[in-house]
Amino acid sequence: MIEIVWAEENDFVASVAECKHNVVLEDEFKQAWGCGVVVTQEDIDRVVAQVVEEERAVLEENGWGYKARLIPKVRKQLQFASGKLVNEALDRQLVSVLGENTADAKAKFQENMKKKRKQKKKEQKQEQKAAEQAVTQQQEEKAEEKTEEHKHDGGQKVTPWEASADKEFDYNRLIEHFGSQHLTQEHLDKIAALGIPVHHFLKRNIFFSHRDFDTVLEKKAKGEPIFLYTGRGPSSQAMHLGHLIPFLFTKYLQEAFDLPLVIQMTDDEKFLFKRNLTLDDDPETGVAALCRENVKDIIAVGFDPDKTFIFSDLQYMGGDFYRNVVRFERCVTLNQAMKIFDFTRENNIGQISFCAIQAVPSFPSSFPGIIQPGAHCLIPCAIDQDPYFRLTRDVAPRLGYEKPSLLHSVFFPAMTGGSSKMSSSANAVASIFLTDDQDTVRSKIFKYAFSGAPNTLKEFKEQGADLDADISYQYLRFFMEDDEKLEAIGSAYAAGDEKMTTAAVKEELTKVLQHIVKQHQERRAQVTDADVEKFMTPRKLGGQSF
Amino acid sequence: MIEIVWAEENDFVASVAECKHNVVLEDEFKQAWGCGVVVTQEDIDRVVAQVVEEERAVLEENGWGYKARLIPKVRKQLQFASGKLVNEALDRQLVSVLGENTADAKAKFQENMKKKRKQKKKEQKQEQKAAEQAVTQQQEEKAEEKTEEHKHDGGQKVTPWEASADKEFDYNRLIEHFGSQHLTQEHLDKIAALGIPVHHFLKRNIFFSHRDFDTVLEKKAKGEPIFLYTGRGPSSQAMHLGHLIPFLFTKYLQEAFDLPLVIQMTDDEKFLFKRNLTLDDDPETGVAALCRENVKDIIAVGFDPDKTFIFSDLQYMGGDFYRNVVRFERCVTLNQAMKIFDFTRENNIGQISFCAIQAVPSFPSSFPGIIQPGAHCLIPCAIDQDPYFRLTRDVAPRLGYEKPSLLHSVFFPAMTGGSSKMSSSANAVASIFLTDDQDTVRSKIFKYAFSGAPNTLKEFKEQGADLDADISYQYLRFFMEDDEKLEAIGSAYAAGDEKMTTAAVKEELTKVLQHIVKQHQERRAQVTDADVEKFMTPRKLGGQSF
Repeated sequence: MIEIVWAEENDFVASVAECKHNVVLEDEFKQAWGCGVVVTQEDIDRVVAQVVEEERAVLEENGWGYKARLIPKVRKQLQFASGKLVNEALDRQLVSVLGENTADAKAKFQENMKKKRKQKKKEQKQEQKAAEQAVTQQQEEKAEEKTEEHKHDGGQKVTPWEASADKEFDYNRLIEHFGSQHLTQEHLDKIAALGIPVHHFLKRNIFFSHRDFDTVLEKKAKGEPIFLYTGRGPSSQAMHLGHLIPFLFTKYLQEAFDLPLVIQMTDDEKFLFKRNLTLDDDPETGVAALCRENVKDIIAVGFDPDKTFIFSDLQYMGGDFYRNVVRFERCVTLNQAMKIFDFTRENNIGQISFCAIQAVPSFPSSFPGIIQPGAHCLIPCAIDQDPYFRLTRDVAPRLGYEKPSLLHSVFFPAMTGGSSKMSSSANAVASIFLTDDQDTVRSKIFKYAFSGAPNTLKEFKEQGADLDADISYQYLRFFMEDDEKLEAIGSAYAAGDEKMTTAAVKEELTKVLQHIVKQHQERRAQVTDADVEKFMTPRKLGGQSF
Repeated sequence: MIEIVWAEENDFVASVAECKHNVVLEDEFKQAWGCGVVVTQEDIDRVVAQVVEEERAVLEENGWGYKARLIPKVRKQLQFASGKLVNEALDRQLVSVLGENTADAKAKFQENMKKKRKQKKKEQKQEQKAAEQAVTQQQEEKAEEKTEEHKHDGGQKVTPWEASADKEFDYNRLIEHFGSQHLTQEHLDKIAALGIPVHHFLKRNIFFSHRDFDTVLEKKAKGEPIFLYTGRGPSSQAMHLGHLIPFLFTKYLQEAFDLPLVIQMTDDEKFLFKRNLTLDDDPETGVAALCRENVKDIIAVGFDPDKTFIFSDLQYMGGDFYRNVVRFERCVTLNQAMKIFDFTRENNIGQISFCAIQAVPSFPSSFPGIIQPGAHCLIPCAIDQDPYFRLTRDVAPRLGYEKPSLLHSVFFPAMTGGSSKMSSSANAVASIFLTDDQDTVRSKIFKYAFSGAPNTLKEFKEQGADLDADISYQYLRFFMEDDEKLEAIGSAYAAGDEKMTTAAVKEELTKVLQHIVKQHQERRAQVTDADVEKFMTPRKLGGQSF
């Protein structure tokens, strides 16, 4: 007679009566130490049904032979159930799925086992190989994470510190990505309607995008106050042709629209972002010296000394300017700054908050006694600076200020073509500096300027040159003011005219650039320290009524 | 005759020959579908030995009865081994550990099972209860995460913006946590040895901690230049008694050590951290107005006008000061700032970089023409400001500057006692402001000052008062200069002298504080805008030879 005790599922019990559940006393266990394990018939049926359901597809493929593979899966959840009861339950379930067991099921199963063992061996080898590649892969993934944004934007990445693209820059996509507007013929017509000449940078889509430029046109038409703001980060002694673009255009805007202008030298930014720079007067690395030299180049562009205030952040910081900085900073969370500028926790805290310093010259109250209160700001700049001013436009209304208007230029391409900008650090040897002598200008053009023409004269005559890819032609678009002449060169070159080969185009470009560089050098030689002093002295800029 | 196939461990096999391992054909399985599972005898022995070893302590406690509990643990790793072989292996192993099985092993096991079932029921109930508490707990944990540092530091959290503790502040723990040093009697003796009086804040451990104070003593002894730097964040119109502590002590240091002093008004910080503040002259919320009013209070403490430069960040920012700011910023990563100051991505970017602005007054080059180049900086401040200067001391050598020395004070306790500081925002009604009239001072003391005495006179006579908890006595430690009188009051009060009840101590405190507040008000009434102008004008401070 067996004694009766109360028991929970999966308990060990020595007897069966008064159990909440049916008791399955696994015979072997009971014989061995006089106790069994409580497992209900329902539990067995439930687990078996569940496993069969999960494996149904493979089971149907393999037939009864697969039964042996199901056992461990069932047993895992039913360790102490009687093998006999599990087997019966499994058979019942399998019959319902597969029909009755046939004679060749075992043979089929044996066959399958052999195949699978081979497969297993193969997989093991592959796994080992994969493990070896894992380290390399991890490193690559890390790099990929950093350029995620880059990838998402069709392979191009544009931040104030980096501009790269898989192929050529897609400026339409950039407009879409940044949310700015195309400059249209209508804008150009409106400028002309104001009696203002239209610069070839506008006609040739070199300045191609804008934000609120219509406001500028309206205010100009009404005679309301506007001022220009542009800037430069003085990170190197010599400026190159690319650096000239925004300044040439700004000079045009100042003259043609008759506007006061502030030029920010972001010496603090360059110091914060380039670890090799110092704050002193070292001619190679001191931002004070670099700033002064760059200011001379900027003055040499020909700005109106009466209407232009050039300031160094390191010198000018303070007072109302600083008050606007803290007001701006209070409106920007770390999260925003990190997202917009792609910062990590390894960036320094000055970099994190620098955006406020580039933002506040958009507000006339940063220039008390210099710019008329309430004047509307127009910022000509390369498109890569847009993130700063997108943020500025976002914050401005919260400070009670007007959003600045913007005119965006394309990048000035590198001599070697492709999707890089001209640079004074990367690929400097192929950049034309404003300090280069006439022969150097010529030899750089002939040596490095990427040609869009085929390799042989025969092919050239047949196919003509690819103007978009041809750097000499592209540079002419930037620097040859004569529309008709440019058009003539372009059509002949594109048509494969043997009088307008790459060499001939390079010759044209050489003449243009030698002239520009020479003129710049002559003007720069005239710029004195007193001129620098004058341009950098805070004072009421001319042509304003306040 | 059984056919032979090659098989891996744990494979299903229909036959035994040519197997790499011994084949244990579990009878039941084999009968059911004509195949077995490969498990070696060594595997069985290894698993059994390992499980027995892991469970040895419990096994020895429970004896043979525990064998049933070992089965599932063994079976988990040996699902397909023959139960018989496992049982034999287990028996062998158990005999070696427990000796032969005895007759009452089963009975003992049954007894244990009953107990454990009861225990299990109990645990289930507890689990349910725990589950119910889970939601609350999760919320608490979230809050706890934020104060993780707080918990780790024995329930107290101290940052420049927050000081809280579960009980009283444990200043020794704070010293340990911050890594500063105790001020010792030796330091006090050294001060005295220089012929300098020892302030009661030092004698009474109100200034209790330091960094590199020995350097200051050495330099003072050698007559080398030292300057003092302290500051105030002008976030409210009226200063309270707690605000006075660092200034009273700084005034002592200036007089006794004969030192020039710079006082930083962190109006920019307050603007960045308090959203209700504005930059204008609004008497309630404008930091310009709050700064000017606070400066008058500071001047009224009695600083030497010839040796004290008070500056507002918003006014003074620029030039060499700003150059030091960007140099400092370049040395601090976002990661560091976030860790030290417990910032999140929701903090604004001005808050993130503010630490540089509080750091650079430690360097004499931030005060050209004001402080002697190379002068060593001593900063008296409340201990909660230490994170700024820990960072400053970390960065200083990288900028080629000397680390500043520090003297740390405890917090000035709130009237209502416990672990909070006196505050002009939280619990302001119970704070004594320097603008309070004589009656208000008296009534606040009698109404709010937490008493460390028992509720009845009888108990007071028996037990005396708890001086540490008694705010009136604690305030006397801060403000009653007469050591003997303080000692007399303290012993009588602690001893339960009926002549020195809480009311009597409050009367003493009232006299002291009314005098201090009245004197302050009289001196402040004398401070003119011209005085403010004088103190805030950059100029060479007296007593320096440069």
